[in-house]
Amino acid sequence: MKQQLLDVEKDFLDYLKKISHYQEAVSLMTWDLRTGAPKKGMAQRGEVIGSLSSEIFQMSTSKDMKNYLESLSEEDVWKDLKETTRASIKECRKTLSKFENIPAEEFKAYVILTAQSEAAWEDAKEQADFSQFQPYLEKILAYQLKYVEWKGYEGNKYNALLDDFEPGLTVETVDKVFTQLKEAIVPLVKEISENGHAPETSFLFQQFPAPQQAAFSKHILEAMGYDFAAGRLDTTVHPFAVGLNTGDVRVTTKYDESDFRTAVFGTIHEGGHALYEQNIDPDLTGTPLSGGTSMGIHESQSLFWENFVGRHKNFWKKQFDTLKTYADGQFDDVPLEDFYRAINAAGPSLIRIEADELTYCLHIILRYELEKALINEEIQVKDLPEAWNDKMEELLGVRPEHDGEGVLQDVHWSGGAFGYFPSYALGYVYAAQLKQALIRDLPNFDSMLEKGELKPIKEWLTDNVHKFGKMKNPLDILKDTTGESIDAAHLINYLTEKYRNVYKL
Amino acid sequence: MKQQLLDVEKDFLDYLKKISHYQEAVSLMTWDLRTGAPKKGMAQRGEVIGSLSSEIFQMSTSKDMKNYLESLSEEDVWKDLKETTRASIKECRKTLSKFENIPAEEFKAYVILTAQSEAAWEDAKEQADFSQFQPYLEKILAYQLKYVEWKGYEGNKYNALLDDFEPGLTVETVDKVFTQLKEAIVPLVKEISENGHAPETSFLFQQFPAPQQAAFSKHILEAMGYDFAAGRLDTTVHPFAVGLNTGDVRVTTKYDESDFRTAVFGTIHEGGHALYEQNIDPDLTGTPLSGGTSMGIHESQSLFWENFVGRHKNFWKKQFDTLKTYADGQFDDVPLEDFYRAINAAGPSLIRIEADELTYCLHIILRYELEKALINEEIQVKDLPEAWNDKMEELLGVRPEHDGEGVLQDVHWSGGAFGYFPSYALGYVYAAQLKQALIRDLPNFDSMLEKGELKPIKEWLTDNVHKFGKMKNPLDILKDTTGESIDAAHLINYLTEKYRNVYKL
Repeated sequence: MKQQLLDVEKDFLDYLKKISHYQEAVSLMTWDLRTGAPKKGMAQRGEVIGSLSSEIFQMSTSKDMKNYLESLSEEDVWKDLKETTRASIKECRKTLSKFENIPAEEFKAYVILTAQSEAAWEDAKEQADFSQFQPYLEKILAYQLKYVEWKGYEGNKYNALLDDFEPGLTVETVDKVFTQLKEAIVPLVKEISENGHAPETSFLFQQFPAPQQAAFSKHILEAMGYDFAAGRLDTTVHPFAVGLNTGDVRVTTKYDESDFRTAVFGTIHEGGHALYEQNIDPDLTGTPLSGGTSMGIHESQSLFWENFVGRHKNFWKKQFDTLKTYADGQFDDVPLEDFYRAINAAGPSLIRIEADELTYCLHIILRYELEKALINEEIQVKDLPEAWNDKMEELLGVRPEHDGEGVLQDVHWSGGAFGYFPSYALGYVYAAQLKQALIRDLPNFDSMLEKGELKPIKEWLTDNVHKFGKMKNPLDILKDTTGESIDAAHLINYLTEKYRNVYKL
Repeated sequence: MKQQLLDVEKDFLDYLKKISHYQEAVSLMTWDLRTGAPKKGMAQRGEVIGSLSSEIFQMSTSKDMKNYLESLSEEDVWKDLKETTRASIKECRKTLSKFENIPAEEFKAYVILTAQSEAAWEDAKEQADFSQFQPYLEKILAYQLKYVEWKGYEGNKYNALLDDFEPGLTVETVDKVFTQLKEAIVPLVKEISENGHAPETSFLFQQFPAPQQAAFSKHILEAMGYDFAAGRLDTTVHPFAVGLNTGDVRVTTKYDESDFRTAVFGTIHEGGHALYEQNIDPDLTGTPLSGGTSMGIHESQSLFWENFVGRHKNFWKKQFDTLKTYADGQFDDVPLEDFYRAINAAGPSLIRIEADELTYCLHIILRYELEKALINEEIQVKDLPEAWNDKMEELLGVRPEHDGEGVLQDVHWSGGAFGYFPSYALGYVYAAQLKQALIRDLPNFDSMLEKGELKPIKEWLTDNVHKFGKMKNPLDILKDTTGESIDAAHLINYLTEKYRNVYKL
């Protein structure tokens, strides 16, 4: 009897491995499309990706999958399963529950809708004309409202969406955390704008040749402990990191020759994501557990490196001299203190992806509040532009002049990614909590940065976050490392202290 | 009734499309592995490739495939099929007939054997010790002998293998063609070695930085009509070209900084392969017809460009000045005539992949004769080293000092690729015949090279060869363009005239 059980387990794991193989192929093709695939082959490549993706979808929701989940969940079978098999089963159930109640026809129509919608959004954004996008967004929202019902939820409807990206988090918690953030950051931004001493930044914008930026980017990635024998660095338009398998985790970046910050902080950010994927326990390879546990925890890793390391004064005590050797004299007369303040310049702005680390959360909170209101049918799609602009004024004190720099700026909604935005800010909150725990274990964190000893930081993050893959939920990771649940206090303390210092208040 | 037939046809074409999608994914992963994939992810990537390849194999030999082939071949169905559907059916039957009689267990054991055998070959080659490789090659040969019976053949047993790479060709024909070649080339090589005036070549081997070689390689590819919007150029260890789809055909090359010929002629060669794949009729996309019709016809395209264009004096009348602008003064004092003679230096040598265009065929003929003797059990594996060395002396007048530079030099046999070698020389013969037909249609071929007008050449090759994909057999292509069957006379005339001139005889 025992032998037969193990056979089912083995078959199930082989089935999962096959899915993971298809996913790796899709990921490589996507990476390739974004890093230099020739234009004329792209449409065909899109079909190939579609074909393999639909195979993955079918295998994840098939009768076979349901049979595996059912037979492996029987009590006398379950008790003999490996721990990773059990965790894999839970992951598969999650995926299944996302999709199993969606009528096939509705799903198919929705896939077509989002493709059209993304094209419509692009045009609308270019022409700063929300009315062109409105009918598409209305249909997408209508689908989201049905999806919420198909999937099911407890409490607020928006919980169904939040759960897709940040399992375990609820509107109740997010509201609390975001209120904390708003109450602290809104007045802080106001204060530095009105009374702060803004840093001089003009020296940042000099010619810095791309090949030299690339060499510095590689130097920084290596210093972070990124393993180039298990990765590579390429250029792209919208930078990202992708884990094909733990031995092949690729970083992409872009070089703005008149603003080196794009590449440096972008590379550190994506490098943070990549360290996560490179250091997941290899035993999880071939299972759905071999990936980041949530969007937010993933973002906690990129933001940890970008902000708590990359924008720390001590980090530059070591790296500023190195940067100078790559630059064409741009920083030769700049004191470290001035450089530090310049790369931490902050203030209200209209565009999320250009926002600084202080105001970034406010851009996210705005989107969260609008999404929640839409899903709960408290506002309508047609009201969005006005609501957006009002909220911008309320949170940041600036008002877009047109929808291109307002409600149309992000691609997410056109692809139906509702529930995704909060993770960006939650990740930042997690990161600040993880930093507290890290400093408890590595109390000389500040002097490690000064000496350029970054590897113990990577190792701590591996031991506490990376290696588990999806074996732990976001909140379990927080609890096991910090003893706390989610709490914005650490981030608020950090931002307050840092920006009062940078702006000499 | 008609409608139902068309439905089966449509389902069949969808089935083929899915196979082609998987093949594109596998090809991209293989390209990636050979152009910079990180080392630590390679083992896992190998598994992914294995997984998708086995899916392709299963789909190509499945019950579903057999049912399609059977039902579409019924007389009243067949007559209503599209021409491309019929040709696809023939291709699928060919694949099926290769595999359907192989017992599953034997095939599986053979796949494992070839993997082990390739590793054993690598060690044996390094240590120049045939005895290490002999037991593996004996097993591979034993399988090949069984494969020949499973597949079936007419006339000589070797025909079964030849047909896998060069459909329509038989031992009888190849014997005749290769005898023609031997009788002409062996004395010609002897004559130039003994009485010829060898060109001065020392100026070839100066420092030529890789980035400048890359820029010149791109310039030449563009001149040939290679479309960079449907391709890209990368570096690798063993250069190749690969068609992912007609809009994405990639060339790879390598740069030897002390011998620019490696990259220049290598790039032109692979560029010739790439032009073939870029210019296949896009209507064939998604069918098994969207590829070169045979190994030999593919090689005819690469050799046409490499030798008849790239080693032609008139080509360099235009390109030599351009080459000088990329080089660091290396050719500034070299007259064109000396350059032309130097890049066409020829003579007996031991290693096939380093051989010149004159002696190359003899290296191939040697391998063909040995393979044929093995398959017909006229010699045994243990006799190979001695037989190899004797043939080298007979054909080229040189004798290897050890097996590393003799029988162990090529990877092919270790992977079981018997029947593949002849295509290299047959391609060269085809190329010379195609050139005759091209000159008939474009009589000012020589002056076009001089002016750098290469695109009409590409267009002629597209109209007569490329666009058909696998819609025509090798011999049909020859017949339709030249009115002839295969005939070595054109190649012999070309080589005789050219090398008597280069060696001033």
